[in-house]
Amino acid sequence: MNSIEICFTPALYGHILTEPPFTVAIVDILRATTSICAAFDNQVKEIIPVATTEEALEYKHKGYLIAAERNGIKLDFADFGNSPDNFTQDHVRGRSIVYSTTNGTQTIKRINNGKPVVIASFINLTAVSKYIASRNQNVVIVCAGWKNKFNLEDSVFAGALTAELLQLGLTMNCDSAQAAVDLWSIAKANPVAYIQKAMHRERLKKLKLDSILEYCFTPDQTDVVPVFDGHKIINASLDE
Amino acid sequence: MNSIEICFTPALYGHILTEPPFTVAIVDILRATTSICAAFDNQVKEIIPVATTEEALEYKHKGYLIAAERNGIKLDFADFGNSPDNFTQDHVRGRSIVYSTTNGTQTIKRINNGKPVVIASFINLTAVSKYIASRNQNVVIVCAGWKNKFNLEDSVFAGALTAELLQLGLTMNCDSAQAAVDLWSIAKANPVAYIQKAMHRERLKKLKLDSILEYCFTPDQTDVVPVFDGHKIINASLDE
Repeated sequence: MNSIEICFTPALYGHILTEPPFTVAIVDILRATTSICAAFDNQVKEIIPVATTEEALEYKHKGYLIAAERNGIKLDFADFGNSPDNFTQDHVRGRSIVYSTTNGTQTIKRINNGKPVVIASFINLTAVSKYIASRNQNVVIVCAGWKNKFNLEDSVFAGALTAELLQLGLTMNCDSAQAAVDLWSIAKANPVAYIQKAMHRERLKKLKLDSILEYCFTPDQTDVVPVFDGHKIINASLDE
Repeated sequence: MNSIEICFTPALYGHILTEPPFTVAIVDILRATTSICAAFDNQVKEIIPVATTEEALEYKHKGYLIAAERNGIKLDFADFGNSPDNFTQDHVRGRSIVYSTTNGTQTIKRINNGKPVVIASFINLTAVSKYIASRNQNVVIVCAGWKNKFNLEDSVFAGALTAELLQLGLTMNCDSAQAAVDLWSIAKANPVAYIQKAMHRERLKKLKLDSILEYCFTPDQTDVVPVFDGHKIINASLDE
């Protein structure tokens, strides 16, 4: 039976038990992976994640559209920030976008290393679960967290994804999967209210999330399955 | 107000937000910190943690009693393994013990660095909570975990300790504290049953824990507060 392992932060990716080959899914609910799914839902052609602002600026000079933020704030030279409501069909349909965020895109690049990285969020929950199960491999779910620290929104989502994958026949091989499923069991009746427990703290206050919270925690708004191949992210949806 | 931060594994200790000075509490419920509390409850004089088996063997040649295991198995040259029921009053009262385990003692040494490290477990929960609160500092709770991975028993205990510290006037400054409190809210009606959910997995099966599980998850069996000063662990209980 294929197994599920969760890393609550990228700092724990070096300590995983799962042996290759395996599928990696990356989670950054607020906001990179939600935004990437939103952009593909609005028919972006491809997204090129870059780790540094310097790289993003180089692409800007080559004429690319740039989505870039640091600590929740859009960078001056960027065309978009990191909010899913930035990526409207008007702006992104058929375009290539270069993307750089505090946690999400840096994590995607760090955990790649030859294997495809699947982009997971609530808005593509069922589609991404089916895609992962269809690969018939063990899976490692990596939460982007916040500066290598545990965060609630990514961990709770990892629990929701694990619950779906258990239904599709996978099994848990670590305590973090069990803990994530238990946190999801508390949160699922009202994920937004649950996450707001954490919102009085500095990190989330700064992000001014009120207008997008509901969107970021509502499952199954799209069937896209963005996958990073080492250079760019494209839509690998089973329904395409 | 003094704050509580939790590291679910020692690998995350390098990423903490809390700034010095702060108190550090270390947790390794199965079994190092429970066993250390049991030994002090049975009036051991002092415990010297060492990271390597080579160091433990050197002390053996100097005539010390040795408690040492790797991966749950007592080392050949050791007088004790790592189970709390090894440290009976007959064996330990008034004695100095050198102690080395897979996770616990290595973590204690790694996170010391000049500041005292408080040894926390269910069996001294109330006493250790009062001791930490009496220090009137921020506190960082470090779970020993399992080979730098998240584990349920230490995380659930970190939630129990956080719940006590909140009652004593401290506040949470990170999502991991919130998650740990939520896991504890699920586990507290029957912590042993909760932890047995994880027990079908390899790690805990090997430890043959049946006889000591109840002991390790029963709060407040002793008032001792073992504290590591950089060289040795002594009892710093407020009641002494």
